[in-house]
Amino acid sequence: MEQNETPGARTPAPGTQRPGGRTARTRTSVLEAALAELVESGYGATRIERIAARAGVAATTVYRRWGSLENIVVDLADELAVSITLGGTGSLEDDLRTVARAVVRLNGDPAHRAWLEAMVAAAPGSPKAREALASVLAHRRDVTAAAVHAAVARGEVPPGTDGHEVIRATVAPLYLRMYITGEPVGPAEADRAAASAALAARAGLYVLAGAADGAAAPAEAG
Amino acid sequence: MEQNETPGARTPAPGTQRPGGRTARTRTSVLEAALAELVESGYGATRIERIAARAGVAATTVYRRWGSLENIVVDLADELAVSITLGGTGSLEDDLRTVARAVVRLNGDPAHRAWLEAMVAAAPGSPKAREALASVLAHRRDVTAAAVHAAVARGEVPPGTDGHEVIRATVAPLYLRMYITGEPVGPAEADRAAASAALAARAGLYVLAGAADGAAAPAEAG
Repeated sequence: MEQNETPGARTPAPGTQRPGGRTARTRTSVLEAALAELVESGYGATRIERIAARAGVAATTVYRRWGSLENIVVDLADELAVSITLGGTGSLEDDLRTVARAVVRLNGDPAHRAWLEAMVAAAPGSPKAREALASVLAHRRDVTAAAVHAAVARGEVPPGTDGHEVIRATVAPLYLRMYITGEPVGPAEADRAAASAALAARAGLYVLAGAADGAAAPAEAG
Repeated sequence: MEQNETPGARTPAPGTQRPGGRTARTRTSVLEAALAELVESGYGATRIERIAARAGVAATTVYRRWGSLENIVVDLADELAVSITLGGTGSLEDDLRTVARAVVRLNGDPAHRAWLEAMVAAAPGSPKAREALASVLAHRRDVTAAAVHAAVARGEVPPGTDGHEVIRATVAPLYLRMYITGEPVGPAEADRAAASAALAARAGLYVLAGAADGAAAPAEAG
């Protein structure tokens, strides 16, 4: 089955393919086929040969372009990354509940779930997958941390409260169930996680040592 | 490289190998070699051929007995599962801190970390790995939930507080960093997770609807 072709031997020179041309169409077909295979078979049983067959391209084309399933999964990040938007409810707990319920809802979308499971599975063996996963999650945290900054501004939580840490606390119990223990998650788990993170934030537990605005933070033994 | 041998063709009939005999020695050698390979190469790059070579057995022997790397990783659970013991400090937060710091310490052990990373990576593609991972973590929760029952008994947290849920809340922010985002963890993260879980427990957030002892629990929309 393997063809010991020189890598790149038949790849057109850079710039010879127009955007939106055959190369772009191949990319779209392969990524769509990969996602369908991940949903059907799961990461562990997904094979590049089946992705290629489904996309109607030669397996060597896929190997030449991506090299491995990990790299295809990483490329899917651009297609699937979603932003969670917050209404700004005026209550940190309500905002966090919006975030937590969005995480649970995304987990109910087979395509999103299959891709994120693949990222989690690929991360330990692939620094590129690890980085892409961390980057997707950090981007989500950036957006949702705005809710924490608003809560600081209206005096609901202490100055110096770390937005990323509050969001981590909110989503962590959900990710534990979804991607590690495989336990079910629903609105009840989302709401409990949001309530717990909001309570700890109000108590000042996420004012971290060395916070940027110099708020008095307890020194923690590192 | 593949040999299309009938599976089990040269396996001795059940009962013909004494415990502690060659079969047991092979098992030990293969599991030790697998762990060493996982530590050196990570789950994604670990190959059964290299495990077999390291253990000094034929690759076919390993394939016949385990079938896949996932199954070897699952078998390692028996060798590596550790119990976290609690002193019973008389304070829920102190007990939870012991649990959280133990999780962080185990993560610093290369063998334990490599194995648990492999379990997390294998779980989405292998129901057996998923079940083994869930079982290891559930067992740890059983042990540590005793600290929560003691806190209920001395009136520190409300009756009906769910021990497993308190422990999940304690370890979730650590697992998120260790196995999903790949961010570092240390004693500061452990202590913060313990403080947050203890606070939420004292506030009654882990009194779940339908708790066994019939404590008044807020009904949660499912």
